[in-house]
Amino acid sequence: LTNTGAMYEKYHCVYYSNILKMKDDILYHFALGTSTHDFPALFGDIKFVCVGGSPSRMKTFITYIAELLDIGNPGYDYPNICAGTDRYAMYKAGPVLSVSHGMGIPSIAIMLHELIKLLYHAKCSNVTIIRIGTSGGIGLTPGSVVITKQAVDATFKPQFEQIILGKSKTESKNKSWSSVQDLIAEMYTSTSLMTCHAFVGQARLDGAICTYTEEEKMQYLKEAHKTGVRNIEMESSVFAAMCNLSGLKGAVVCVTLLNRLEGDQISTPHDVMKEYQTRPQKLVGQLIKNHLGKK
Amino acid sequence: LTNTGAMYEKYHCVYYSNILKMKDDILYHFALGTSTHDFPALFGDIKFVCVGGSPSRMKTFITYIAELLDIGNPGYDYPNICAGTDRYAMYKAGPVLSVSHGMGIPSIAIMLHELIKLLYHAKCSNVTIIRIGTSGGIGLTPGSVVITKQAVDATFKPQFEQIILGKSKTESKNKSWSSVQDLIAEMYTSTSLMTCHAFVGQARLDGAICTYTEEEKMQYLKEAHKTGVRNIEMESSVFAAMCNLSGLKGAVVCVTLLNRLEGDQISTPHDVMKEYQTRPQKLVGQLIKNHLGKK
Repeated sequence: LTNTGAMYEKYHCVYYSNILKMKDDILYHFALGTSTHDFPALFGDIKFVCVGGSPSRMKTFITYIAELLDIGNPGYDYPNICAGTDRYAMYKAGPVLSVSHGMGIPSIAIMLHELIKLLYHAKCSNVTIIRIGTSGGIGLTPGSVVITKQAVDATFKPQFEQIILGKSKTESKNKSWSSVQDLIAEMYTSTSLMTCHAFVGQARLDGAICTYTEEEKMQYLKEAHKTGVRNIEMESSVFAAMCNLSGLKGAVVCVTLLNRLEGDQISTPHDVMKEYQTRPQKLVGQLIKNHLGKK
Repeated sequence: LTNTGAMYEKYHCVYYSNILKMKDDILYHFALGTSTHDFPALFGDIKFVCVGGSPSRMKTFITYIAELLDIGNPGYDYPNICAGTDRYAMYKAGPVLSVSHGMGIPSIAIMLHELIKLLYHAKCSNVTIIRIGTSGGIGLTPGSVVITKQAVDATFKPQFEQIILGKSKTESKNKSWSSVQDLIAEMYTSTSLMTCHAFVGQARLDGAICTYTEEEKMQYLKEAHKTGVRNIEMESSVFAAMCNLSGLKGAVVCVTLLNRLEGDQISTPHDVMKEYQTRPQKLVGQLIKNHLGKK
């Protein structure tokens, strides 16, 4: 246990994992490795990591944040750092890293395992990670930006349950993210967000397979609403659990694409939807700018 | 219930779902819709759908299969049918459709919901769907091609359990795929394949978070091996369940990238790995060619 680095205090999970025993570490899904890439030189200055499902949206974000922070050349075409693979896309501008994570808990979990190891190998410190995503709203006007106070699972509990070595285990109680709430202050009301799987998990009626009625769907969503849930997506319960376990400051800021109490299909025109998706980017961009300006 | 179509018998799930009541159906994650696209004209002739995690691999496959079947112009750059989104990529050559599904159960489940609806709207009949994937092997030489007899979950059971309206339900016992076994005959031995989530679910020791020992990992993998499991990946349990429920003939053919009894990291050179990934494509390509030639 010789490699303590700057991450020692923050990244308990990495410290107690097997990474320290490994000579090389291959981050396969990023197409990066410690024996082929100089992590401290490439990534050592990172202070904010923004993640989202879609690779093209994360490229749009890096261009936006670079202009907002006035770094790099205007119009610069940021290269994909993970060009050696098509599993994820990664872009960097100064202290901001922008990474795609695909859809669903396993997809974001694989990315976060490799991202946390990347930050560890790069000896980063004091990093905040923010998910900028899309979601379905419950009782909100489409286009609403929702800041998550607490991520709950499909049973409305603030936890992340997973199968480890064939046995179900609840990994971590998802704490509320007070540190990030402070940053965002009272700009928007924060609420609970529910993480579910695919069509059926989200109680959609328009899947190829549907074993419940519209009444049962509505009852479930209204029950969720009663417990404080205002939007639904597919990644944040594991995101919260892994932020807590690794000591990373985390936040989730999602726009709602539709009101699930009124339907399941997204019929909003493409250009309106595109504008919706810039809203969390603008909020988080301002947050990052304010924070970096304070130092 | 007027729209019976050719899929009536095959696609029970769609028939009993809410799709028939819908005027338009927007397949959001494909950027396709029944009011904007002529599904029977675009997709009506499909007989084989091949799916895999990586979009670029699925593009490689469509070029390969078109040459093998001697359709289209050599060197033709197949356009991405889902160019309006970056969630999935889709390519078509004659009766073969090639679609990416990302990583993990939710990601492939969303794709399959929209794919089954696409086949229904297009009035396709007698379609076979084959997952051409990568996996971790248990006790096999890296580069082995494994045909799945049965997909089991992380507890070695041939089932797919999911949370529906907040309650855990076992959706379907995953049958063995005898119809496809007949097609493939005795070319390769078929075995069980285990579907797990991300790093921890697959008992990897090299994640950022790891709460078990090497001994516990080895015991779990050896137990899996004893029940007949020869490879591990992250999608096939839900793939099997949705094939069964929808009446689609299905098969899973994966190459193993490493032997998990010897390690967790993929350190094989890039070009060797690329060659590995062509192996299931060649086997499935031959299967499709033989089958289409018989008619």
